Amino acid sequence: MAIAESAAAGGRIVTIGEILVEIMATQPGDGFRAPIELTGPYPSGAPAIFIDQVAKLGQPCAIISCVGDDDFGWVNIDRLKRDGCDVSGIEVRDDQVTGSAFVRYTTSGDRNFVFNIRNSAAGQTRVTEAAAALLADCAHLHVMGSSLSSASLIRETQEAVAAVKGRGGTISFDPNVRKEILGAPDVLQAISYMLSACDIFMPSGAELTMLTEAKTEAAAIAEILGRGITAVVVKRGAEGASYHDSTQDRRIAGFAVTELDPTGAGDCFGATFVTCRLQGRPIADCLRYAAASGALAVTRRGPMEGTSSFAELDALIGEGAVQ
Amino acid sequence: MAIAESAAAGGRIVTIGEILVEIMATQPGDGFRAPIELTGPYPSGAPAIFIDQVAKLGQPCAIISCVGDDDFGWVNIDRLKRDGCDVSGIEVRDDQVTGSAFVRYTTSGDRNFVFNIRNSAAGQTRVTEAAAALLADCAHLHVMGSSLSSASLIRETQEAVAAVKGRGGTISFDPNVRKEILGAPDVLQAISYMLSACDIFMPSGAELTMLTEAKTEAAAIAEILGRGITAVVVKRGAEGASYHDSTQDRRIAGFAVTELDPTGAGDCFGATFVTCRLQGRPIADCLRYAAASGALAVTRRGPMEGTSSFAELDALIGEGAVQ
Repeated sequence: MAIAESAAAGGRIVTIGEILVEIMATQPGDGFRAPIELTGPYPSGAPAIFIDQVAKLGQPCAIISCVGDDDFGWVNIDRLKRDGCDVSGIEVRDDQVTGSAFVRYTTSGDRNFVFNIRNSAAGQTRVTEAAAALLADCAHLHVMGSSLSSASLIRETQEAVAAVKGRGGTISFDPNVRKEILGAPDVLQAISYMLSACDIFMPSGAELTMLTEAKTEAAAIAEILGRGITAVVVKRGAEGASYHDSTQDRRIAGFAVTELDPTGAGDCFGATFVTCRLQGRPIADCLRYAAASGALAVTRRGPMEGTSSFAELDALIGEGAVQ
Repeated sequence: MAIAESAAAGGRIVTIGEILVEIMATQPGDGFRAPIELTGPYPSGAPAIFIDQVAKLGQPCAIISCVGDDDFGWVNIDRLKRDGCDVSGIEVRDDQVTGSAFVRYTTSGDRNFVFNIRNSAAGQTRVTEAAAALLADCAHLHVMGSSLSSASLIRETQEAVAAVKGRGGTISFDPNVRKEILGAPDVLQAISYMLSACDIFMPSGAELTMLTEAKTEAAAIAEILGRGITAVVVKRGAEGASYHDSTQDRRIAGFAVTELDPTGAGDCFGATFVTCRLQGRPIADCLRYAAASGALAVTRRGPMEGTSSFAELDALIGEGAVQ
């Protein structure tokens, strides 16, 4: 595995992308066209959730992002710092407002959003001097498709990817695509670039065939591996996950837990898989820990509230509550 | 009075400035650095509250503003339209997010805010073709100091002022200054310009002496009237208000009501005063209706929830509940 060979088990994992607060409706329904009960601000943003989960596992890590000099920025910085993440790559700007996402579940389980990302501080994320220093000592870089929402964010992300690859580090990519950003110019092209640049590709469900000629799952996996990607990890929510490389296919069932809030589960899964792999653990263990991490995430309300330590993951695994 | 002479009683009142949603903390405390209970989105923005109050009084009116094509924009447009405001001057942009204000009262009654205004759709407010058509048939334009938060907003506002004055319309100005915008370049200068351009100046408390050489209230009023402004109306919250022109000084006590949420009370007061004045009512009646309007506003939770019809104002006045 390129990823295991690329760095010592203690190597730093870095991500680049949006830090947000999430404001959640307490009751399901349609959208935000009348005053309703809400709760927040919760620390959020897919890359931020990812890196907080990495930090909880004790792995050296950092995030490159941008927040406003406001309570919504500090609620995130305080949390990430508390959990062990290096926050030196987070630029704090007093002329910007921290990004936000209002989320409301519909009665059918879909989600309605009101996002402020592109025009928020998150949209100003760039590789500052401090961020460049982090990338200069980085074993692995993780990129979320949700972060590729503007030309400038795509440029900064590709700069970070090039810096890490140039020094022999590895890359993981979670397409994490919402319909909201697919309309933006260059986004599909940027996702294709990431697919060609990454070592580990971690789609959820239908994302697997979104960028392939192949229409079936097996054919899509073969097509992607054929492009030179080391491994494909397919996240399947409550059904668990599967791992595929040129020599093996493995599948793990999901852990049986009571779902309270699915937001962030995929990010936790990915963070735990990448961390375990970087630590040189066997694929089966990486999958098991990742599935446990995703399962615990859904039992907590709030996107970043469900990140877990190895002790917490071991406790769930010890219960043997696989579905 | 220039304002009464300038147009028929049925003339249109227009304002230009920010449309926002407000998200309120349900419990007092300090800021937003941890998840708390919230409620919202409430239609908001000082100019929007002002014009909604004008609409409730049956006066033809319109607002020039900009919102995102999102639930937060539509909750405002739907409300303003329902209450009788012409919404053709509200530009709806799909590349922008509607502005927002998170508000939390401290235990001492101060307010903590997290604003997204300058970088939101509200920051893109401009005199579109539709807005220019509204200004071409406008008896009176009202400007809030809170709307003068960037060079481009100042430019668009001054363009609107010039258009209305050029056709013989009148101008009112509520400095409505928050410390957050006084730091911005050109803001003080823009406020000074409005002070020289307006017919009616409507400060609250300490705002009266903020822009005068004079340090006492009486001297400040004399200084401002000496600059050629027709009338000064000083809003005094629960203590009522006072009116001053070159020939008279009048004072009205506040109505005794139970305060639930003071946000928007000054905007309602100003809207009702300007509307009554434009309708040719005597100063004493204008003050009484305006004070009643401000009083009713504080009895409702939510910035725009406390706008009132003449019937509602008459009911309060009939109760004779002056403090």
